[in-house]
Amino acid sequence: MVAEYRGMWQELGLDLEAHDALLEGLGEAYRDIFLTQPNRPRAMDYFDFVVGEIHGARVQELLHAKAQGRKVVAAFCVFVPEEVVLAAGAIQVGLCGGAEVGFDRAEQYLPQATCPLIKSFFGFKLARVCPYFELADLVVGEATCDGKKKAYEVFGDLAPVYVMDLPQTKSGAGRALWRAELGRFTAEIERLTGRTVTAGGLREAVGVVNARRAALNRLARLRAADPAPISGLDALLVNQVAFYDDPVRFTDKVNALCDELEQRIRRGEGVAPRGAPRILVSGSPMAVPNWKIPMVVESCGGVVVGEESCVGTRSTRDLVDEGAQTLDGLLDAICDRTLRIECACFTPNNERLETVDRMAGELRADGVLHYNLSFCTPYAAESLRLQRELSRRGRPVLRIETDYSRDEGQVRNRVEAFLEMLRPQAGA
Amino acid sequence: MVAEYRGMWQELGLDLEAHDALLEGLGEAYRDIFLTQPNRPRAMDYFDFVVGEIHGARVQELLHAKAQGRKVVAAFCVFVPEEVVLAAGAIQVGLCGGAEVGFDRAEQYLPQATCPLIKSFFGFKLARVCPYFELADLVVGEATCDGKKKAYEVFGDLAPVYVMDLPQTKSGAGRALWRAELGRFTAEIERLTGRTVTAGGLREAVGVVNARRAALNRLARLRAADPAPISGLDALLVNQVAFYDDPVRFTDKVNALCDELEQRIRRGEGVAPRGAPRILVSGSPMAVPNWKIPMVVESCGGVVVGEESCVGTRSTRDLVDEGAQTLDGLLDAICDRTLRIECACFTPNNERLETVDRMAGELRADGVLHYNLSFCTPYAAESLRLQRELSRRGRPVLRIETDYSRDEGQVRNRVEAFLEMLRPQAGA
Repeated sequence: MVAEYRGMWQELGLDLEAHDALLEGLGEAYRDIFLTQPNRPRAMDYFDFVVGEIHGARVQELLHAKAQGRKVVAAFCVFVPEEVVLAAGAIQVGLCGGAEVGFDRAEQYLPQATCPLIKSFFGFKLARVCPYFELADLVVGEATCDGKKKAYEVFGDLAPVYVMDLPQTKSGAGRALWRAELGRFTAEIERLTGRTVTAGGLREAVGVVNARRAALNRLARLRAADPAPISGLDALLVNQVAFYDDPVRFTDKVNALCDELEQRIRRGEGVAPRGAPRILVSGSPMAVPNWKIPMVVESCGGVVVGEESCVGTRSTRDLVDEGAQTLDGLLDAICDRTLRIECACFTPNNERLETVDRMAGELRADGVLHYNLSFCTPYAAESLRLQRELSRRGRPVLRIETDYSRDEGQVRNRVEAFLEMLRPQAGA
Repeated sequence: MVAEYRGMWQELGLDLEAHDALLEGLGEAYRDIFLTQPNRPRAMDYFDFVVGEIHGARVQELLHAKAQGRKVVAAFCVFVPEEVVLAAGAIQVGLCGGAEVGFDRAEQYLPQATCPLIKSFFGFKLARVCPYFELADLVVGEATCDGKKKAYEVFGDLAPVYVMDLPQTKSGAGRALWRAELGRFTAEIERLTGRTVTAGGLREAVGVVNARRAALNRLARLRAADPAPISGLDALLVNQVAFYDDPVRFTDKVNALCDELEQRIRRGEGVAPRGAPRILVSGSPMAVPNWKIPMVVESCGGVVVGEESCVGTRSTRDLVDEGAQTLDGLLDAICDRTLRIECACFTPNNERLETVDRMAGELRADGVLHYNLSFCTPYAAESLRLQRELSRRGRPVLRIETDYSRDEGQVRNRVEAFLEMLRPQAGA
């Protein structure tokens, strides 16, 4: 791959040496963590290919689209309405942010006590090892947490940035603010692309994104089977790839994967023995290549059966109502969908407890692992009450707070003890 | 004092033993830090008295008001519109939050990486040593930062809490959200007090609070004199007492202090020798009894000449326009005033840089000390850019991040070096 894309990366202004080292490390980790898994679904081949080509073929594809006049919008958050971007003929991609890259440089711009996701996206940019940053015509941020909100102010010095405000309470006035922000965003995307977002175009885009959500929801539901038909690692990977890949192609591939998993379920076949402790992961997002939690859980004999996470069901559960005919009606529907997201940025956010509880029941989870990125205040704050309330309902909770450092040993010790505790229940 | 108020504290449910220890420590610190200062203005006697009676006479006064049917609203933030509270015949007071009290208990409710101000208000409540919490009919929180926003959710288990949403961008839709929140707050205060907020009542209340702001602004301006007519410690104390004391009485006392300072200035008299390095403090709030920064600066031979802080000019600089006649017009004016506050909760918040620069000029500061509470992300994030930009404009900046622990030694080393660097400039 390296030879084939070297010219492209050079033209994008990447630091080739640092980028080579990054890809080499990534490839090695991927082989060790993913390709050694037993009994993987065959349909994972496609996702392996996409990850292998994440800085290659997909970047080439985006550059090709740009050459044809399409714009690329990079974003980080499930609140950014991809439907609007697609309706304007542009493409939305996720940003690099899941590895400890360039942290020393990032800390010249950010407080030391900043979550690793934020340090990482700064680091990827400053170290010039993320092709998506370099090819993006616009980076769209949002005011979901103090860390990101303030980081985007500074990031504006490094790249073209547009920030969406968010209400912090799901009130009528809060909805009006967010609805106004969706209108402002639409105007910005129209300005960027030189294209008008029409009702027809937006309805089509809603259909595309809804279909991707529906496929991912189908995948999420299949994981309720015991034995689990797919590993938590592979399922997380699919959810991560959702942020990068072409949505239509991706949806087909997820549905093909689901077809295969349905056959497995009919045959009673799975990736972990029946009775392996089943874990629902809930909390902060896990960006590529942040695979620490499912890797540790599954190497300890557990299996992750769901992610109540932005990289997981939080971004897919609800679909946009496709009934509306007008542009305003469609934006209203997008507004309503996003305001159902149970992000810890909202206060109060009590529905999230019910969602985690319900998901744990539906997915037959034996325990909940609350995953917290260090210094991710909103999720850390919710985790204490979540643990208390779920424990009261008979759902054991392990809270893990970690960054992108190599602390797997420590995490493993705590996960092992947790799984040990769950074993008598698991499969009971 | 202890004997006189013991019964009252017991009735309020305070932990008398812990409260005795707290007051003893506070009294000792106050004597050491404040009463040993040379050449204090005589008018500080009143503020010494108020601090001495902060859990005594003022609490008694509030209980007396409650016995007559008035309600007490406790709040933390300059966005909470005290005018509305006063217009409903209620009283607004600040909350305890400036000392390391009950942190071990607070950490059962809050992430470890939470700013000490928040841990402290939880700690004061959980340790039952803050009479204001116990007598308050309502605690009003606001969504200014992740830490407070999420903390108030949990604090609702411990006390009656009402939370105001805030926009994060000063846009038209953001203003509409905040204006709606002011209306909702007014309705809540009417419900609490059983009284209607009228245009006349609100206009009068605006006058009262504006007069207090004007007096504090007068004090702030007098500190531009060289030599400084009042220490930073005493000026901070006055600003801290503003959150607790009866506003009309307090305003008179601040004006009396200013009369005395004007005489001093005419005589060329001050608290520090002419040429002592003059420091503008900017950043996170300093709640009673958090006196660390001015104490260290002034014990090193510098003098603090201003506070660009919520406990400082950020809460006083702008007055509410008194021109409006209707209730809606007055709430509009309150809305507009609060949205001029340059809180780091807003994005962007570029005006703050200009304000700090202008204040440093007006107050003839030799350097800016950016004060950051640990884990106060919004101010920490702004501090890096503020330092870069101000340095470029020839204004040296020292960034200090600290909590409520006894780390004065470390802070002193850095402050001493900073003052040493400033000395050739100071008085030049």
